[in-house]
Amino acid sequence: MVEIIVAPNAGFCFGVKRAVKLAEESVSLIEEGRRVYTLGPIIHNPQEVGRLKKLGVNPVGEEEPSKGDAIIIRSHGIPPERERELKEKGLKVIDATCPYVKAVHEAVCQLAKEGYFIVLVGEKNHPEVIGTLGYLKECNGEGIVVETLEDLNEALKHERVGVVSQTTQSEKFFKEVVGELALWVKELKVINTICNATSVRQEDVYNLAPQVDVMIIIGGKNSGNTRRLYNISKSLNPNSYHIETAEELQPEWFEGVKKVGITAGASTPSWIIEQVKGKIEEICERQSCYS
Amino acid sequence: MVEIIVAPNAGFCFGVKRAVKLAEESVSLIEEGRRVYTLGPIIHNPQEVGRLKKLGVNPVGEEEPSKGDAIIIRSHGIPPERERELKEKGLKVIDATCPYVKAVHEAVCQLAKEGYFIVLVGEKNHPEVIGTLGYLKECNGEGIVVETLEDLNEALKHERVGVVSQTTQSEKFFKEVVGELALWVKELKVINTICNATSVRQEDVYNLAPQVDVMIIIGGKNSGNTRRLYNISKSLNPNSYHIETAEELQPEWFEGVKKVGITAGASTPSWIIEQVKGKIEEICERQSCYS
Repeated sequence: MVEIIVAPNAGFCFGVKRAVKLAEESVSLIEEGRRVYTLGPIIHNPQEVGRLKKLGVNPVGEEEPSKGDAIIIRSHGIPPERERELKEKGLKVIDATCPYVKAVHEAVCQLAKEGYFIVLVGEKNHPEVIGTLGYLKECNGEGIVVETLEDLNEALKHERVGVVSQTTQSEKFFKEVVGELALWVKELKVINTICNATSVRQEDVYNLAPQVDVMIIIGGKNSGNTRRLYNISKSLNPNSYHIETAEELQPEWFEGVKKVGITAGASTPSWIIEQVKGKIEEICERQSCYS
Repeated sequence: MVEIIVAPNAGFCFGVKRAVKLAEESVSLIEEGRRVYTLGPIIHNPQEVGRLKKLGVNPVGEEEPSKGDAIIIRSHGIPPERERELKEKGLKVIDATCPYVKAVHEAVCQLAKEGYFIVLVGEKNHPEVIGTLGYLKECNGEGIVVETLEDLNEALKHERVGVVSQTTQSEKFFKEVVGELALWVKELKVINTICNATSVRQEDVYNLAPQVDVMIIIGGKNSGNTRRLYNISKSLNPNSYHIETAEELQPEWFEGVKKVGITAGASTPSWIIEQVKGKIEEICERQSCYS
């Protein structure tokens, strides 16, 4: 029997997986007679949003929720005043905010209470950043969003500066901002809130590729993060293949094979990973993979 | 009458000037019958050390101080246990530790009390660093000196890291260390203790050179920091001259001149600056500078 190992951090990150799971579980509320909405598309993947629609979970917009309906806050999070508004409307709020994003909300308030002026490294219009700024306001903190080094000027007027990051920021830019601030302000406190989903996905490949006979990497052919996973895998195991769907799997790849590793880029839903896993099992039932 | 403006940060930095002043003032103790020593050469300038020797202030070494004698701690500072030893010997301790260095001693203890593991960016064998480590030990703190990025490995084992710097470290390396740490540790607190003597000296030239008729830059012809001052000055005022001593001043430079600016590199004692100033006044008394 062939052994198939799926990399622990394959595909969606922890926070997105969790949000999708909460959306799936909310189906029980539909059975109770409520309608269930998500506040914006729960993930940036139309197939996945389509799949949830079929279960009855729709993004707000086409229809507006009313008293008694459930609403899911997606992994990015929202400002606390927005959450209160939803509750005041009589909606049942299901909070799928990523715990790593909640950690940013806590970090800005901790730093604000300690008297630091906040520098939030991130994109000014990103929903996660807008949510975090809401929390900063809630705890009477002051601060700015830094998207380019020029944005830092405002922070240099302050003697004590606290730095956090949008969870998906580039480590390179974060490092530049912190280094620059360290030279100009009197006291700097940094809580690194960058989520390491990308780097742990790569670490998985470093661990998995050398110990399997074949390595399958799933993800868009034009996806940068997937191609990087493939290149790492190929350098460690020549029997590495980059596919987009289960249909691309070739039976001859698995002849005489004992162990198969699977990973997937950030935009690959777990059901596609499951399809690939199922297809490999099917191939190996028809032919003797491990002869 | 010609107006001569000496740049506020010309020559020796604040801490060295202060140490030399304390050494000069200690001459009153000699008059009381005590001997006065410095713990190591008070500055890295043999003429200046020679001048103080003539006043009776000698570096420890050739002679050892005994009970009742005075000893001057130079601007680098020393570990507190060493200071206690001197006092226990019955010596009168004159503390010429630079206030910016004292600020580093305070910063490491503040961070240690807050539970941070200390990263002191600096040279392992530098007297200032040895002094600071003494203070860190005194307040039961833990930490390391980081001279290269490889030295950081030990710090990465700790979740909460506090960073300070030897006062004369390069800003570039400090920035690198802080940026790197920000990515790897959970919480980082930075107190920038780099002294900005070099940059303020340059800022002085940016301010002074455009508002004077002639700009005189004093310092070794082979001194990098003096040459940089000269280049900045020359770019702002074509009547800029780089000299080593007052003897090089040419009377024709000052014909019809109303305002003269003077600055000096880091290794120039103030008495050389005073000699230059005096010589310019003398030239302008003999000839009408401002005609």
